[in-house]
Amino acid sequence: MAQAPKITRISPLSPDEAKWTELRKIEWTDQTGKERIWEAAARKTRGKSGIDAVAIAPILRHPNKPPSTIIILQYRPPVEAICVEFPAGLIDEGESPEEAAVRELKEETGYEGKVCDSSAPLTKQPGLTNVTIQMVTVEVELKDGDKEPEQHLEEGEFIERRVVPISELYDKLQALSKEDGKIVDARLYHWALGLHWSQRLFPKS
Amino acid sequence: MAQAPKITRISPLSPDEAKWTELRKIEWTDQTGKERIWEAAARKTRGKSGIDAVAIAPILRHPNKPPSTIIILQYRPPVEAICVEFPAGLIDEGESPEEAAVRELKEETGYEGKVCDSSAPLTKQPGLTNVTIQMVTVEVELKDGDKEPEQHLEEGEFIERRVVPISELYDKLQALSKEDGKIVDARLYHWALGLHWSQRLFPKS
Repeated sequence: MAQAPKITRISPLSPDEAKWTELRKIEWTDQTGKERIWEAAARKTRGKSGIDAVAIAPILRHPNKPPSTIIILQYRPPVEAICVEFPAGLIDEGESPEEAAVRELKEETGYEGKVCDSSAPLTKQPGLTNVTIQMVTVEVELKDGDKEPEQHLEEGEFIERRVVPISELYDKLQALSKEDGKIVDARLYHWALGLHWSQRLFPKS
Repeated sequence: MAQAPKITRISPLSPDEAKWTELRKIEWTDQTGKERIWEAAARKTRGKSGIDAVAIAPILRHPNKPPSTIIILQYRPPVEAICVEFPAGLIDEGESPEEAAVRELKEETGYEGKVCDSSAPLTKQPGLTNVTIQMVTVEVELKDGDKEPEQHLEEGEFIERRVVPISELYDKLQALSKEDGKIVDARLYHWALGLHWSQRLFPKS
């Protein structure tokens, strides 16, 4: 059985030692003509696409079950917690965001689907980083009797997947937020909150 | 009239010069017992609450108009673009996330509302930063004949606000994504996408 991940030390990272990340000093002139400085963080890994990563909203359709989605749980050292997120991943060289979405969904959850919606590039944290993502909705058509597929995780990846009926997602995220050592990702929460408010504002008559 | 903001130089930021941000080296032991390193970025500004910032989903209710929300447009140096986002802000010392949400909504948009929903702490970009936010939904009750209130922006803040009927938000974000020099924030897009899928998956009969 796998052991619980554990942080042993957090220390300042010098620019010489940093392989994946860097801090940047942005000198800019604001709307009044004043010269200002903004501090930002960036990934060094961005490829030619100009998009750092892809986020995936999976929609599972089944003849006898309610429409569902898949959330993943994985330990994330920067927040020292198990993070509840949509599947996601970096885009490989030469790959389109849509291809990356289908590949990452299969690797992280085992499910194979088709892209039905793909966003423009989106910012992830524009006050602090230059990171951009693309949001891809992938539909998975299941048949009666289909077994849960196997994940295809890389070595060193520990990802738990959970299938959740979409109508129960908001309550499920509330419950997971209360569990020790778990934290929900803001983007997944926003998706669930949008669904929740849609039901509140535009109820079925 | 304000001039267009412009970036003059981007250079590496040394740890000695960085006032607001830092890179961290996280040494951790993974689930197999292997010692590993994770690089992360952090804000130096986190207060006692342990939450860095608050994001606000405004819901405007009006007797004769459809339920609406408010989005803001502001130039963000890290992405060199005008970013389309929900109102948001850092939490002041001694302030609760809910108080910060009501204050920031009034400052950035002029509208005064009441908190009707407040999330647990959420991660914003857990693969790269330790930043956590809280998501607060604020309802604004408007009366017939209410004029658009004045913003209360700080010096050097340039924020454009737009009131958008919630049922049109998804299409509005698609259109804004196509405009030159604009980029939509992932969290706002997720909220709109959740609403959109709610209508697709659970249509009114």
